[in-house]
Amino acid sequence: MTAAVSAPEKPETKAPRLSNTRPGTRQHLLSVANLGPDGINELLRLTDMFVEIGRRPIPRVPALRGKTVVSLFFEESTRTRLSFEMAAKRLSADTMSFSVSTSSVKKGESLRDTVETIEAMGIDAIVVRHSAAGVPWQIANWTEGASVINAGDGWHEHPTQALLDCYTIRQQRGSLEGLQIAIVGDIRHSRVARSDVLAFSALGARVTVVAPPTLLPPSLHGWPVEVSHHLEAVLPSCDVVYLLRLQRERMTEALLPSLREYTATYGLTRQRARLLGDRALIMHPGPVNRGVEIAAEVADQPNSVITRQVRNGVAVRMAALYLLLGSGVDLGA
Amino acid sequence: MTAAVSAPEKPETKAPRLSNTRPGTRQHLLSVANLGPDGINELLRLTDMFVEIGRRPIPRVPALRGKTVVSLFFEESTRTRLSFEMAAKRLSADTMSFSVSTSSVKKGESLRDTVETIEAMGIDAIVVRHSAAGVPWQIANWTEGASVINAGDGWHEHPTQALLDCYTIRQQRGSLEGLQIAIVGDIRHSRVARSDVLAFSALGARVTVVAPPTLLPPSLHGWPVEVSHHLEAVLPSCDVVYLLRLQRERMTEALLPSLREYTATYGLTRQRARLLGDRALIMHPGPVNRGVEIAAEVADQPNSVITRQVRNGVAVRMAALYLLLGSGVDLGA
Amino acid sequence: MTAAVSAPEKPETKAPRLSNTRPGTRQHLLSVANLGPDGINELLRLTDMFVEIGRRPIPRVPALRGKTVVSLFFEESTRTRLSFEMAAKRLSADTMSFSVSTSSVKKGESLRDTVETIEAMGIDAIVVRHSAAGVPWQIANWTEGASVINAGDGWHEHPTQALLDCYTIRQQRGSLEGLQIAIVGDIRHSRVARSDVLAFSALGARVTVVAPPTLLPPSLHGWPVEVSHHLEAVLPSCDVVYLLRLQRERMTEALLPSLREYTATYGLTRQRARLLGDRALIMHPGPVNRGVEIAAEVADQPNSVITRQVRNGVAVRMAALYLLLGSGVDLGA
Repeated sequence: MTAAVSAPEKPETKAPRLSNTRPGTRQHLLSVANLGPDGINELLRLTDMFVEIGRRPIPRVPALRGKTVVSLFFEESTRTRLSFEMAAKRLSADTMSFSVSTSSVKKGESLRDTVETIEAMGIDAIVVRHSAAGVPWQIANWTEGASVINAGDGWHEHPTQALLDCYTIRQQRGSLEGLQIAIVGDIRHSRVARSDVLAFSALGARVTVVAPPTLLPPSLHGWPVEVSHHLEAVLPSCDVVYLLRLQRERMTEALLPSLREYTATYGLTRQRARLLGDRALIMHPGPVNRGVEIAAEVADQPNSVITRQVRNGVAVRMAALYLLLGSGVDLGA
Repeated sequence: MTAAVSAPEKPETKAPRLSNTRPGTRQHLLSVANLGPDGINELLRLTDMFVEIGRRPIPRVPALRGKTVVSLFFEESTRTRLSFEMAAKRLSADTMSFSVSTSSVKKGESLRDTVETIEAMGIDAIVVRHSAAGVPWQIANWTEGASVINAGDGWHEHPTQALLDCYTIRQQRGSLEGLQIAIVGDIRHSRVARSDVLAFSALGARVTVVAPPTLLPPSLHGWPVEVSHHLEAVLPSCDVVYLLRLQRERMTEALLPSLREYTATYGLTRQRARLLGDRALIMHPGPVNRGVEIAAEVADQPNSVITRQVRNGVAVRMAALYLLLGSGVDLGA
Repeated sequence: MTAAVSAPEKPETKAPRLSNTRPGTRQHLLSVANLGPDGINELLRLTDMFVEIGRRPIPRVPALRGKTVVSLFFEESTRTRLSFEMAAKRLSADTMSFSVSTSSVKKGESLRDTVETIEAMGIDAIVVRHSAAGVPWQIANWTEGASVINAGDGWHEHPTQALLDCYTIRQQRGSLEGLQIAIVGDIRHSRVARSDVLAFSALGARVTVVAPPTLLPPSLHGWPVEVSHHLEAVLPSCDVVYLLRLQRERMTEALLPSLREYTATYGLTRQRARLLGDRALIMHPGPVNRGVEIAAEVADQPNSVITRQVRNGVAVRMAALYLLLGSGVDLGA
């Protein structure tokens, strides 16, 4: 069930190549799958610079002055929307936000007209979250001048989450090459899991997904992962244990008998956390259900990098916006 | 049923005069009726400059730095709110938005107190949309230091829509003088129709409204228009056919038998679109009900300028904000 | 029932000391109680500068460029949220807003995770309103790098309202020392009353609360106030009469027989307003229920400073943000 990740065949190119969906037109950031190891590495290297900028007394550069970034969120999200907004503002871009509840979508305006309308106004980037897989690709097909960033589409992909996860691991461990990473929980309904599996394995890590059979996808054919149902067996050799958020609706869908039973078998309790090696990292995409997928004390342990993931998210999104929209303006001030 | 539009009697003045409702105080943009041919032409000329600014690599000028524009929307709207926000940001103004669902209006605060409060904070312009005709005038009476822009009041007026429509036609055809323009659809409940009739005829076009009797106003006395119930008869001589959005609630109000019948009689189908001359423009204020008032393929034809209307909307609103709030700052950079 | 306010014992310090809740870490503005007369006076003196800046043609200074202020409102509010946003923008800070209806709070994210997440992104200040008393203190305990400003917590405190009230009185009368101030209405459920009592008496005013027994707190022990149930008896000697907003839900809670009876006994009617001295000020935190706690004509009298309170609110909040976040940047331009 493990697929080898092929090594990059050509030397790294200097020009950013975040997307190959529509050559000759605007670039997009739609999926980790499109990005490849070169694209991921380039973005991570650029992120270093934005982490440094974030530590300055005035953490702001004029790189995207006059550009406009719109967030088009059809699902609610605190952290992702604010993180992109913060990233755009630190690059001096203007931000506007458009959520379903205050939009013409209610009037029956089709998604396509919405997209064509906001693009016609001169928007430079559209950050989109939607409950249906594939919507960001549709939007990219309808736009001519704007870059599209997938901020989560259904159970499909969430590429900037995977990029910030890679960055956080690289920051702590130097590289992902050869690391053992366990992703634990509701793999089936998780865009984070899907993007992380692709990104971690593209960078040379070996990924094991740990979940009850009901929370695994119907088929894992082609996924570069091992599967386990025994968290205790996996933990001692892990360099990273990545816990997914458990949505409470899985109970009502009869995919899980009870929260208590889930925690008893798949939760990172205090006892289980002791099985981890000293340098092993604990990660979570947030928001955390303390006491369900992870014990409150474990989430606050020194080797938990959950808060650091959030912090790196702003820098990673700055790097993504800069690569997509940057016009060569100096980042010096 | 056609009224002659009187020619301007005096030479054009240099100073902007967007409103004559309250001489000696702040200027407002409340209606096309108040604006007159001189006011419209002045604004269209100024728009040229903002269209040019919109093509620059950094489409932003410092003209309104330190000014604050608040959008006060009591009805939802994607395109209009974002268009004004974008216009304000490109002029370096600050924007804040205030929608009914997150406001003290729910607490029973009167509209007047709301307006006096936001004005007291030092707001420079209030962009207002309300379902009741006349509300922007009320608000203008309650303010002392802030300019009021009508972004749509009930079935009454939507002046910036008419201005962007005029600009788009002028851009394509050089002038509106002598053009034949058909406005098709729900004239009765349309603020766009009302403002467009006034603006188009003020600039010398001849306007025909095409609608079933139930969707015409009870009286057209004083409207400078011809009336027709036969779209096919009107199309061959049209320079512009302007389709209005059909609100689905007209069916439940028994003003229309069915959508299908409306489309059969008043929709711009592919067959009917062939009756148009080669240079005839197809326009729509959006959002488009594809397949109802206009066939999807027709909306995407080369002579359809629907997307261009949206694009010009930002520049027209920049011109309006600049005229109302501009303090003589250089637009050069 | 009156407690003496002790005079400041030590000379005024130059460094701002807005909070003593967590020495050695970030400063917060949580309560008037923490602030003391020195803190209040320092902030009022600084406000003079921001009032002056507000009168400039471009009322904006670069003091907080690159800082980010998030408003985290769990209760709706027009005026307070916009006033803080305006203050932050005039200081060149970035603003982001986060309201319950569009947040992860709906997903069951705990308040603590929300706060830690937005702080991890690099936010500099969190302006919080919550229906539960004490929440801003909780948030301050969970943050390390961000300053917390209490914009109203339950029935407890609303310090910036008290500060703008003090500033408005000082602006009109030079000082609060020795003034007689009546606060009229629903003292029991009012965070404004609580903060005003503390601030007014800290600056040397004598405060009388005027309310029906059902709208007084169960105990006034330790409050530096006199109590009266007879508005007419109090008005002739008042320098300031401060009317609180009456929430209509008090009727359904059976704390009041009827609005009409409340107005008859505690409303500032035209007749009662004539009992006030010539220089007496009429104040209200807004939004005003015209005809309930104050007659419409009285709210518009020349000695009513209700609009001025709103205007001063922006400058007071600029001063607060500047003291908490200011990095010593010159305010000259």
